[in-house]
Amino acid sequence: MTQTTPFPTAPELMVSEWFNTGAPITLSGLRGKIVVIEAFQMLCPGCVSHGLPQAQQIHDIFPRDQVAVLGLHTVFEHHDAMRPVSLKAFIHEYRLSFPIGVDQAGHSSMPKTMEAYAMRGTPSLIVIDRLGRLRAKHFGRAGDMEVAYQIASLMEFGAAAPQEDGETKETGPKCDEDGCALR
Amino acid sequence: MTQTTPFPTAPELMVSEWFNTGAPITLSGLRGKIVVIEAFQMLCPGCVSHGLPQAQQIHDIFPRDQVAVLGLHTVFEHHDAMRPVSLKAFIHEYRLSFPIGVDQAGHSSMPKTMEAYAMRGTPSLIVIDRLGRLRAKHFGRAGDMEVAYQIASLMEFGAAAPQEDGETKETGPKCDEDGCALR
Amino acid sequence: MTQTTPFPTAPELMVSEWFNTGAPITLSGLRGKIVVIEAFQMLCPGCVSHGLPQAQQIHDIFPRDQVAVLGLHTVFEHHDAMRPVSLKAFIHEYRLSFPIGVDQAGHSSMPKTMEAYAMRGTPSLIVIDRLGRLRAKHFGRAGDMEVAYQIASLMEFGAAAPQEDGETKETGPKCDEDGCALR
Amino acid sequence: MTQTTPFPTAPELMVSEWFNTGAPITLSGLRGKIVVIEAFQMLCPGCVSHGLPQAQQIHDIFPRDQVAVLGLHTVFEHHDAMRPVSLKAFIHEYRLSFPIGVDQAGHSSMPKTMEAYAMRGTPSLIVIDRLGRLRAKHFGRAGDMEVAYQIASLMEFGAAAPQEDGETKETGPKCDEDGCALR
Repeated sequence: MTQTTPFPTAPELMVSEWFNTGAPITLSGLRGKIVVIEAFQMLCPGCVSHGLPQAQQIHDIFPRDQVAVLGLHTVFEHHDAMRPVSLKAFIHEYRLSFPIGVDQAGHSSMPKTMEAYAMRGTPSLIVIDRLGRLRAKHFGRAGDMEVAYQIASLMEFGAAAPQEDGETKETGPKCDEDGCALR
Repeated sequence: MTQTTPFPTAPELMVSEWFNTGAPITLSGLRGKIVVIEAFQMLCPGCVSHGLPQAQQIHDIFPRDQVAVLGLHTVFEHHDAMRPVSLKAFIHEYRLSFPIGVDQAGHSSMPKTMEAYAMRGTPSLIVIDRLGRLRAKHFGRAGDMEVAYQIASLMEFGAAAPQEDGETKETGPKCDEDGCALR
Repeated sequence: MTQTTPFPTAPELMVSEWFNTGAPITLSGLRGKIVVIEAFQMLCPGCVSHGLPQAQQIHDIFPRDQVAVLGLHTVFEHHDAMRPVSLKAFIHEYRLSFPIGVDQAGHSSMPKTMEAYAMRGTPSLIVIDRLGRLRAKHFGRAGDMEVAYQIASLMEFGAAAPQEDGETKETGPKCDEDGCALR
Repeated sequence: MTQTTPFPTAPELMVSEWFNTGAPITLSGLRGKIVVIEAFQMLCPGCVSHGLPQAQQIHDIFPRDQVAVLGLHTVFEHHDAMRPVSLKAFIHEYRLSFPIGVDQAGHSSMPKTMEAYAMRGTPSLIVIDRLGRLRAKHFGRAGDMEVAYQIASLMEFGAAAPQEDGETKETGPKCDEDGCALR
């Protein structure tokens, strides 16, 4: 599905409670940054095994003055099983460090922000550009390299381009599972 | 290790034989593109399990008019075991589709290009910018997302930025290992 | 740590609520079978990523007239976050099909069965022989092959030994990621 | 495919050269032990990623006085690429420690032992019981737990049953990727 150009403005977040942040977060307040939203449910296996680790990696690797990663707990089933008290422990045990909001309950089983974005389920990865426009919406498993390329393509690189040199890893003599070193 | 600025010019490739290309390839001929070189040995476990699959992914995901991926067979041990006849079958069985050159034998056990780049072993991932300058040199396992970010940071994005929208995957009703879909 | 011989009798289960079974289960009622107990917490990452999938595999592969697999929800932290209403949804979403009991709350933060077995945390894998004796207690990650060997070593094999012949998988012509077929 | 009962006698090995053993090995010399044969090609991706690591695990976990693990290099394509000189380096780099034989060249592209067993490709996992009878023949990917159960089902367990107790792993305080420990 290709969206029409020009890109639509991303709907504002409707969040009832935040974790990992001192103050509520709005998309309008993040204008000028790329925003990556990981929409998830804490009992969704695919969110746990790849969606959330991927979001945490984006948070860890991309420069935070240019890319803001947010989690959004979009519960659309088993509501009683995924209350904020459970989510709070989940965030702690899985060591998620980016801000995570609870999507506001709506009139249907689907919460409000999830409905505004017409998401199809969890995990969904949303990418918003510096002008607040919706640029990508993935449902299901998306590859790390593909996602990184998509986000980077919206960044501005200038003199501040990473100097990414250096040796990633020292290994011992000969081959181990990571590589073969000169002796 | 941080390299000195300004970035040094990447040494030219010294290759005795090419696979997956109709004509020999030179770095000078690729000026204007970012060049990613995966230096490997076909019997190096870490090259097989992550270095080469990562290079293949870069080749598959990044636009080829901007990023050129090359393999370089830098044999520095077990020379008799990794002759070009074996490499050719290896490339076929592992379905590698990017151009791969055999690094020229040198005076020591280390081949010439490997020595010119002062590589520490295999796999090594080299990134060269559009001006032919050496920008990154990884030894061992490098993360997909980190590498993708580094390469993308050297690209030029303009009106041609990817429109990366659409749904990555349809899943059936309810949760499977990839995600949870709305019913 | 090697336990003293003769093997001690495994303490009886103390369970407040069962899932995936029509009637409460007791170890004494399972005498004559090998019993494998997977003690877990639904918000413990290692339980989700390997302990529970391993228990499900044992349930799927071993003959059920000889080996009984049980889950035991041994919550010792974040009690409010892992109530039975949340556990029920968790069991559903992760498609666990073996019987799972909720370990009875005790006087400390540790539940009663967990305390009786002196478990050190979750996941813990307990193996009990046909005579009701405690034979193995693993804490943390245990290898699939090692665990399978341990369980099998307690079984009786006779004329009913599996005839495990046949072809595991058809693959297409040539090599794919699973293997290389004759053409 | 279900094989006819009674189980057929496994054909003797026809091997031109051995690695990792001081003397040639025959099935008749191993009578009384269960024999597991991993038939592979060094350039077969599925053999490298799962067949050979699985065989190494069987060698590491099962008692060697009861279970003998053998590798068999059954080259049926790219013969020039997988000569013994290359195999020797492969065995070294992948740290395979069980005996490995080179299947004798035959009249067709298929080597002799491979033909005698009517294997369908690589990796193939063959299981032979203590009486020298062929009991299992897997082609492609076979699960670790399933294979371990099949081998164990052919063993004799008595007073020597493993006492498999003890703690598999110490973890630090709280949860890490392997588990959650009591504080």
